[in-house]
Amino acid sequence: MEFETGGLGIVILNKADAGRMGLHALDRVILTKNHSTAVAVVDITEKFASEGEILTNMEVTEILKIKLGDEIEVIPSPAPESVAYIRQKIIGSKLSQDKMNVIVRDVVDKKLSDIEMSAFVTALEVRGLSMDEVEYLSRAMVKTGKSLHIPGKNIVDKHSIGGIPGDKTSMLFVPIVAAAGLIIPKTSSRAITSPAGTADRMEVLAPVALTAEEIIRVVKKTGGCLVWGGALDIAPADDAFIKIEHPLGIDPLLLPSIMSKKKAMGSQSVVIDIPTGRGAKIKTVGAATELAEDFVELGKRLDIHISCAITFGEQPLGYCIGPALEAREALEALDNKGPQDVVNKAANIVGVLFETMGIDRHTGYDHAIRIIKSGKADKKFREIIEAQGGNGKVKVNDIPIGEHHMHVKSEEDGRILWMKNGEIASIARAAGAPRDKEAGIKLNVKMGDPVKKGTTLFTIYAKHANKLENAVKLVETYKPMVIGKTYTQNMMMERFPTEIKHRRIFMLER
Amino acid sequence: MEFETGGLGIVILNKADAGRMGLHALDRVILTKNHSTAVAVVDITEKFASEGEILTNMEVTEILKIKLGDEIEVIPSPAPESVAYIRQKIIGSKLSQDKMNVIVRDVVDKKLSDIEMSAFVTALEVRGLSMDEVEYLSRAMVKTGKSLHIPGKNIVDKHSIGGIPGDKTSMLFVPIVAAAGLIIPKTSSRAITSPAGTADRMEVLAPVALTAEEIIRVVKKTGGCLVWGGALDIAPADDAFIKIEHPLGIDPLLLPSIMSKKKAMGSQSVVIDIPTGRGAKIKTVGAATELAEDFVELGKRLDIHISCAITFGEQPLGYCIGPALEAREALEALDNKGPQDVVNKAANIVGVLFETMGIDRHTGYDHAIRIIKSGKADKKFREIIEAQGGNGKVKVNDIPIGEHHMHVKSEEDGRILWMKNGEIASIARAAGAPRDKEAGIKLNVKMGDPVKKGTTLFTIYAKHANKLENAVKLVETYKPMVIGKTYTQNMMMERFPTEIKHRRIFMLER
Repeated sequence: MEFETGGLGIVILNKADAGRMGLHALDRVILTKNHSTAVAVVDITEKFASEGEILTNMEVTEILKIKLGDEIEVIPSPAPESVAYIRQKIIGSKLSQDKMNVIVRDVVDKKLSDIEMSAFVTALEVRGLSMDEVEYLSRAMVKTGKSLHIPGKNIVDKHSIGGIPGDKTSMLFVPIVAAAGLIIPKTSSRAITSPAGTADRMEVLAPVALTAEEIIRVVKKTGGCLVWGGALDIAPADDAFIKIEHPLGIDPLLLPSIMSKKKAMGSQSVVIDIPTGRGAKIKTVGAATELAEDFVELGKRLDIHISCAITFGEQPLGYCIGPALEAREALEALDNKGPQDVVNKAANIVGVLFETMGIDRHTGYDHAIRIIKSGKADKKFREIIEAQGGNGKVKVNDIPIGEHHMHVKSEEDGRILWMKNGEIASIARAAGAPRDKEAGIKLNVKMGDPVKKGTTLFTIYAKHANKLENAVKLVETYKPMVIGKTYTQNMMMERFPTEIKHRRIFMLER
Repeated sequence: MEFETGGLGIVILNKADAGRMGLHALDRVILTKNHSTAVAVVDITEKFASEGEILTNMEVTEILKIKLGDEIEVIPSPAPESVAYIRQKIIGSKLSQDKMNVIVRDVVDKKLSDIEMSAFVTALEVRGLSMDEVEYLSRAMVKTGKSLHIPGKNIVDKHSIGGIPGDKTSMLFVPIVAAAGLIIPKTSSRAITSPAGTADRMEVLAPVALTAEEIIRVVKKTGGCLVWGGALDIAPADDAFIKIEHPLGIDPLLLPSIMSKKKAMGSQSVVIDIPTGRGAKIKTVGAATELAEDFVELGKRLDIHISCAITFGEQPLGYCIGPALEAREALEALDNKGPQDVVNKAANIVGVLFETMGIDRHTGYDHAIRIIKSGKADKKFREIIEAQGGNGKVKVNDIPIGEHHMHVKSEEDGRILWMKNGEIASIARAAGAPRDKEAGIKLNVKMGDPVKKGTTLFTIYAKHANKLENAVKLVETYKPMVIGKTYTQNMMMERFPTEIKHRRIFMLER
């Protein structure tokens, strides 16, 4: 069969043959031919394979080097050891380091079926993980991937748990920190359910799919980088887990996912940004503090110094959402023209790092601001862009944004009372972000700003007219900004049952 | 693509196209062509589909009536409503009747991916179900399937939760009860992980894959039947759930699965057999009592009168294991030559039904024994065999058993201290049961029996010599009978770590 699953091999057997071998759909078989063996999951058909015939997909065909008409040996195979451990997690046992190693090894080797992967991820979500299990899982994920060995000490990093549209903090953080003489080999993800990941934003300015060797070269030269982590094969199990978490909208591997990558990159000190508030992933400072404690504890176990910044997350950061718009805004912020919240947040998070590193024990924030004001951060950013293969002399207006656009205007006088992060992200995605780098949203107002009837609230940019249309339709459904005279004017926050059913907006970022 | 999944349709898109549409692997799309639409899950390839190409599997191809070269429209589609409810169960919400209806409807309509099905089943296992949820799920499963309308009242049934090799009780129960004038349209499953289901046993004597009309005809004529329930489309969701439960070795839908089928068959009074003991599915009388209470409560809610029999389940029932051997033993038992435990168990369970039905308020057991002794049960069984299309005059020796056999002998003097149900089942399956009807095990001794070195413990029968060999190998690994002088002689029950790793033996029967 001319397809591959990207996972466990698949074979299709006739029902009679399967019956004779006592095989059910989704059981495993070991296939042997030409001294090669492959394991595959069984699908059963009454039509497409006759008795004595077996259909193999590309994974199997390639391993066994078989062609049409070849005979292969088929033997029922038990489920791998890891399935027994997944069952143990389901029934509530705690898993040991050895068992986690076996599970993660089998995940990376693609020995588990979607059903087994989903059962594991669901059981982790429902049962929760003990801190021991989080540590074991993190170590197993490091062990099954590559590690980067960057020479030097003071290797630092920064990570946001995400959920806030427009969060381009890393594009300021990396150059400030590198300008201060620290080493920051920053890897980022592309957007999964958001309008832009840091890798998408940076790709507007420079190539981000660098090899490990290229990263080491860039970091040696400039002290920092902003690259896509996906091609480095660090903690490869995570990609397999995300594939399952995404359709289910659950995220039980947040801690091991983030921290295994930091460990594999050799980080010694890391600041975790936890955007918090209604419309963010973490809703309350209490919950954020609990998560921060877990990060710190896990850091101790993995020998990484962790500090956390709990930041205001009730609205998008800055005014720009979407890869190109955000790249522009980051350049402006480093050029001392940036929106206050973008600069303030970056300087605050850098400040936490400076203080914990002992670089500036009490006024890390001021120190960060001085580095921006002096132009050193801007210079460093352009060095990094150049070293990664981009144009270090790029100007804001060189960066194209979507030629199709639409101004969304206020229908009444008042103030911006609430903004809906998830809905704004969905609108930007409908407009084409992150795939269309030029697509996105430019806000004209933020929470608390006064507006009049007819004031532009935001502008949607798109590369394709039909996508602009889709985005505009969503604006009508979602009403992403709530406008009123005062907070006392309308006490109703949401009604139930709601008219917009099953609006599953979920921003999974790592 | 020349294959079908038996579930949700699958399409394969080029990575670039998927990226442009913001699609990830396992997202859904709506496909339109020729005024037909199909929903499918997306797989992503870099090789097998070029940009602008889409590969469709048989499910999709057939719905859309497309051929090579046709253009189809592809639009990203949100996950169905039921996925939101599955998430709610994951995070611990209780599901309402409406939500259960939506989930089960989507299961039956094959709208859920394996990942979503697995997450639901795992969440049910880990979170547990409230009695309300069990009721809602049962009703939803009845509603999405067909029901059988058998004329008359006093429609009764019997069900065993399974787990005991050789349990041919239904083959006695049905004729005794029918001989007493009650109506018992008994449907059974084929073996899933055991050496024989009641449908497999009965098939040795008569066809079991009857249509609803044929069942009604047989039951009208004889008062009872022993048929396979799988072709009747009653509670079809259950097959989809079993497909997921089986590879995971979990069974959270036991109650709704059994009771939805009883409801669909129109049962008014049902006895549930709960075999209990070490090596059975339920280990203690306490646990069996809890389960029995749940059955009774669920029965009240579904308007079915339930009684339960908690029966001794620490060793196989009777001496025969495997379809043909068990059919022989059932005929012998009805002919008053049967092993004591087989007759005793059947009469006890019938007795519970007689007493609760008011047929014999105090001595139901004796009444059942009288019906066997009188030959009426044997006569009735032969009527049923004949009505289903078998030979009502069949003699025990007419039933062939495997020509390859091997006597397994004791290596020491002593008594049979323990027998291992799961391991005995595995050996019988290795010998070819249930697919090879002639294959199985005939025990020569049971628990407590004295043996000498060289005494035959049991004989393995197989149709194929190589399967006999496989079974014999397992005997050496499993040592399914533990022999010793007294129970005080060896206090060690099991050692850990064990030498036989991951011996996942699991008998899922419904």
